[in-house]
Amino acid sequence: MLLDSPAVERLVEAFRRLPGVGKRTAERFALHLLSAPNEDAVLLSEAVREARARIAKCSVCRDLTESDPCAVCSDERRDHSVICVVEQPSGAMAIEKGGTFRGVYHVLHGALNPLEGIGPEELELDRLFRRLEDASVTEVIAATNTTAEGEATAMYLLRQIGADGVKVTRIAHGVPMGGGLEFSDDVTLAHALEGRKTM
Amino acid sequence: MLLDSPAVERLVEAFRRLPGVGKRTAERFALHLLSAPNEDAVLLSEAVREARARIAKCSVCRDLTESDPCAVCSDERRDHSVICVVEQPSGAMAIEKGGTFRGVYHVLHGALNPLEGIGPEELELDRLFRRLEDASVTEVIAATNTTAEGEATAMYLLRQIGADGVKVTRIAHGVPMGGGLEFSDDVTLAHALEGRKTM
Repeated sequence: MLLDSPAVERLVEAFRRLPGVGKRTAERFALHLLSAPNEDAVLLSEAVREARARIAKCSVCRDLTESDPCAVCSDERRDHSVICVVEQPSGAMAIEKGGTFRGVYHVLHGALNPLEGIGPEELELDRLFRRLEDASVTEVIAATNTTAEGEATAMYLLRQIGADGVKVTRIAHGVPMGGGLEFSDDVTLAHALEGRKTM
Repeated sequence: MLLDSPAVERLVEAFRRLPGVGKRTAERFALHLLSAPNEDAVLLSEAVREARARIAKCSVCRDLTESDPCAVCSDERRDHSVICVVEQPSGAMAIEKGGTFRGVYHVLHGALNPLEGIGPEELELDRLFRRLEDASVTEVIAATNTTAEGEATAMYLLRQIGADGVKVTRIAHGVPMGGGLEFSDDVTLAHALEGRKTM
């Protein structure tokens, strides 16, 4: 059986490390690459190697970038006094796609999770605190995820930074735009009511 | 934006060539590989390159294999007089997982599809006909898919081989085991009735 071959087994294992890919999907990917014209396989192998070699963390905000500092950090027209802290590059990307945020980012590459052994030292927090030594920063937006780990990280930011005269804010929790109330869970609805604003 | 980087664009494009992977999934794969520890990326890049280098088509049955001839073709205990013709290695693999077939395989690597320019020369048919010159082959099972292309390929096999005294058979079409009739489509049910057997 082809799938018993050690080379194919290693390929299936490598695909399984991708997010949301189980055994069957990984096997399908492997079979496809082995049946497809050779250039597909070369393309993928080279693209992974090359992207990994070219993309690194921005020396300022730790977001992934091909140029250092990244396009956002080196953009003079952006407001460098407002730093939006996110867990992952995908978070910064999502906000950037929205197109309304004019400040800069800081990517933690994770969230506090004591059970998994992720403390403050495992995150890109040192660099964030060093950025704050620059007196021009006036606000830090905690845009970590709305999970237990994300909330804990936001609280940690408030405790560490709040005393330094820098405003720490949290992104609003509430009902998503365009969705009916019946699709929102209890906790979200409670947050939406609590955070209500005068119209 | 990271996704505008040419290296990341190429990586996303390479992932999109995998079956069932759209733009968003490809972007998620790319972001994961760039954020994950470097070994994940090296592992995938190397595994693709290595699997592709080690796996080749069996010189007898054209199935993908690490050793040549493949494990099935070199197994003396299998019945080499019965050849099961499939479109893709995944077909042979599916039958092999069933564990009841004791004959050997022949993989065409496609099916006849004149609209896409796939004629008999594009398939591994020459090698099949050469195998049939060995007088010991008594039966060819057309286990091509039950699509228009698969059916056309099965008919082609019947026309080309049928006259040579080799029995050509087609896998049964019918209702899948364990499924209610209400889940079967009209064409499948018609085939299941037509192919009914005395109990």
